[in-house]
Amino acid sequence: MPGRSVSRQTLSRLPTYLHFLRSLEGEGRRYVSATAVAEALGLNDVVVRKDLASVSSSGRPKVGYVRTELIGELEHFLGYDNTQEAILVGAGKLGKALLSYDVFPQYGLDILAGFDTDPQVYGTEVGGKKILPMEKLSNLCRRMRVRIGIITVPGEHAQEVCDTLIEGGILAVWNFANVHLSVPEGVLVQNENMAVSLAILSNHLKERFSTK
Amino acid sequence: MPGRSVSRQTLSRLPTYLHFLRSLEGEGRRYVSATAVAEALGLNDVVVRKDLASVSSSGRPKVGYVRTELIGELEHFLGYDNTQEAILVGAGKLGKALLSYDVFPQYGLDILAGFDTDPQVYGTEVGGKKILPMEKLSNLCRRMRVRIGIITVPGEHAQEVCDTLIEGGILAVWNFANVHLSVPEGVLVQNENMAVSLAILSNHLKERFSTK
Repeated sequence: MPGRSVSRQTLSRLPTYLHFLRSLEGEGRRYVSATAVAEALGLNDVVVRKDLASVSSSGRPKVGYVRTELIGELEHFLGYDNTQEAILVGAGKLGKALLSYDVFPQYGLDILAGFDTDPQVYGTEVGGKKILPMEKLSNLCRRMRVRIGIITVPGEHAQEVCDTLIEGGILAVWNFANVHLSVPEGVLVQNENMAVSLAILSNHLKERFSTK
Repeated sequence: MPGRSVSRQTLSRLPTYLHFLRSLEGEGRRYVSATAVAEALGLNDVVVRKDLASVSSSGRPKVGYVRTELIGELEHFLGYDNTQEAILVGAGKLGKALLSYDVFPQYGLDILAGFDTDPQVYGTEVGGKKILPMEKLSNLCRRMRVRIGIITVPGEHAQEVCDTLIEGGILAVWNFANVHLSVPEGVLVQNENMAVSLAILSNHLKERFSTK
């Protein structure tokens, strides 16, 4: 059984492999090799071979992997077959979009409820999920053993919300606010910082036009 | 004048510095040092000093930067003061959320219009932006010299959409679809892959519980 710890780089490529392997459904290919995956995705052969070997030991030389088995192994490794429950704080535009984003269950994420500080939205539903007052957060997290907290509040409130989540027993924070969050050791913050993406895009365009 | 090319790591921290510097508004601090920024954000001193030096040469030993000047330099470097126009393809749930996300203009992004293949949504408006048929994409991009394309279509259509964008003169693709995109040299793809983030969160929880 291969080790469970892989690098972030490897981890970030695994969903792409999975998507590609699933897309071969219907082509009737029983086996697929690391080389074939690498070619199809325009990636380095050696990198793909290493990545796949870190999640599966079922590959055979010159034959490759049984496609459906490898799919299962990737799904398991990525936790898609083991649904994690999450709560979301901040039912603004982005929060509402995430609450009603129905693709998450495919990736093993189930958002149980949203929280907000605005009494006007208490009790309303977004995407079938109730919006609750912040006072209920800790209790619900502890009772349901929720481990993932999603932060979609404005930057200036994000750290305070993060602290409340951690008090409630949250161990992994998905942060959509454009700020750095301080957390105790053992808690992971995954930043989904759109401002950073925009800076990268804008910088690319500047460089393109300054070298012309 | 400091060089324009910085690493992705540096680039990814700059919006956080900017946010922090803006948050000091009202505290009446004229100067701010790299050390103070590092402390407040829980980052390494040396890293912050290097990052700031790569966007500004106005820092003075023992005094630091004039806060408002450094804000201006960061905004300029990040392109927030120079609005880039973009178009979005795929007016599904995520696409609609992005079209009506009113925070983008602060980051220098102006989405001009959305495109879709569903005739039922042609001519409707989301967040004040028209949804247009795909046939109009190339022409609009070329006429308006749009350089940024946002992809929010299902994975299986993403490459095709990407090719159409590039035909229209797009140079930077912001990809929300969970697939690898092949692009010609000189075109940047910035992946906003939520599946990857979820895999990272899920993996962290697995590791936390397997070591207990």
